[in-house]
Amino acid sequence: MELQVKTSKRCELVDLTEKINALARDSRVESGVCFIFTPHTTAGLTINENSDPAVRSDLLEALDKITPKLNYKHLEGNSEAHIKSSLIGVSLHVPVKKGKLDLGTWQAVYFCEFDGPRNRKVLIEFKVF
Amino acid sequence: MELQVKTSKRCELVDLTEKINALARDSRVESGVCFIFTPHTTAGLTINENSDPAVRSDLLEALDKITPKLNYKHLEGNSEAHIKSSLIGVSLHVPVKKGKLDLGTWQAVYFCEFDGPRNRKVLIEFKVF
Amino acid sequence: MELQVKTSKRCELVDLTEKINALARDSRVESGVCFIFTPHTTAGLTINENSDPAVRSDLLEALDKITPKLNYKHLEGNSEAHIKSSLIGVSLHVPVKKGKLDLGTWQAVYFCEFDGPRNRKVLIEFKVF
Repeated sequence: MELQVKTSKRCELVDLTEKINALARDSRVESGVCFIFTPHTTAGLTINENSDPAVRSDLLEALDKITPKLNYKHLEGNSEAHIKSSLIGVSLHVPVKKGKLDLGTWQAVYFCEFDGPRNRKVLIEFKVF
Repeated sequence: MELQVKTSKRCELVDLTEKINALARDSRVESGVCFIFTPHTTAGLTINENSDPAVRSDLLEALDKITPKLNYKHLEGNSEAHIKSSLIGVSLHVPVKKGKLDLGTWQAVYFCEFDGPRNRKVLIEFKVF
Repeated sequence: MELQVKTSKRCELVDLTEKINALARDSRVESGVCFIFTPHTTAGLTINENSDPAVRSDLLEALDKITPKLNYKHLEGNSEAHIKSSLIGVSLHVPVKKGKLDLGTWQAVYFCEFDGPRNRKVLIEFKVF
């Protein structure tokens, strides 16, 4: 299954949790594992706090600071986005229980845009156990 | 299945390997994949050296250094723990072979506490192939 | 299944995409998920751009910069490689579609050598859906 994500900023975290739970409902997955993957090289997937939006902006600001300002050889001006993508990763899994993602109370699944705005895709597979 | 992890320090790596292998034995999983997930936003999961304990303290010290000291907007005083969680990740898989995790000679699976001490959970699913 | 990877430099990204696609063909996997794991503590696995080789050298240079030069207690001289391994991770999954990895146009799967040259292994499992 495929989710479309339309980002509106250069760097942004987009909460996918409700959309993935809707896919689990539509697929009638009761229990198993959800595999999430994004087919882009300047984006990523992470799980972090769903409550205080400051956690999202803090994370983006910290990633900016962590990624060094070097004389990058890749000349498209988005080398830092490629590096953030490898630091954060493009694949993760979440257990599924009672028909939805078995996340912690404070967790949400985020698509991480590092070189937007763009139209992006996220691939979702459920494995029923 | 669920593992309980009681951490005793602010930052700490807890070796889960033996406990996960015991679950594999109890579940009589011979061969397949083990999916490991932690439902927390100030913790993580990693695989690294099981021999010299200095690797664990070096990793924690390096993560402290990597995570920048910013004027974080999240006001709970644990913004750095949220950032480390996204850098390290909360989900991973390990192949299972002959009834146990098919880790390398020097590998162990670690729960990473970044905002302890706390009582934590780790969710384990085996998929038999 | 197991891939052998012979690295020739201290730090290096080795493209595994074609070899994994060959395993998918040999296993006649049509659709499902591919689980990739490397059993080493000074190496990793990442997905990033397959086109401009500068992205690979930029990533290696950035990881060198990100990993701090500390007075590491682990005395084998490869502490930075252990830290890069936990930052990048040793396990990931990729969806499989029409008999091959369902990667984005610009994506390749890379073995990340951080303490070479060495002979390395990568474990591949396909789950058919």
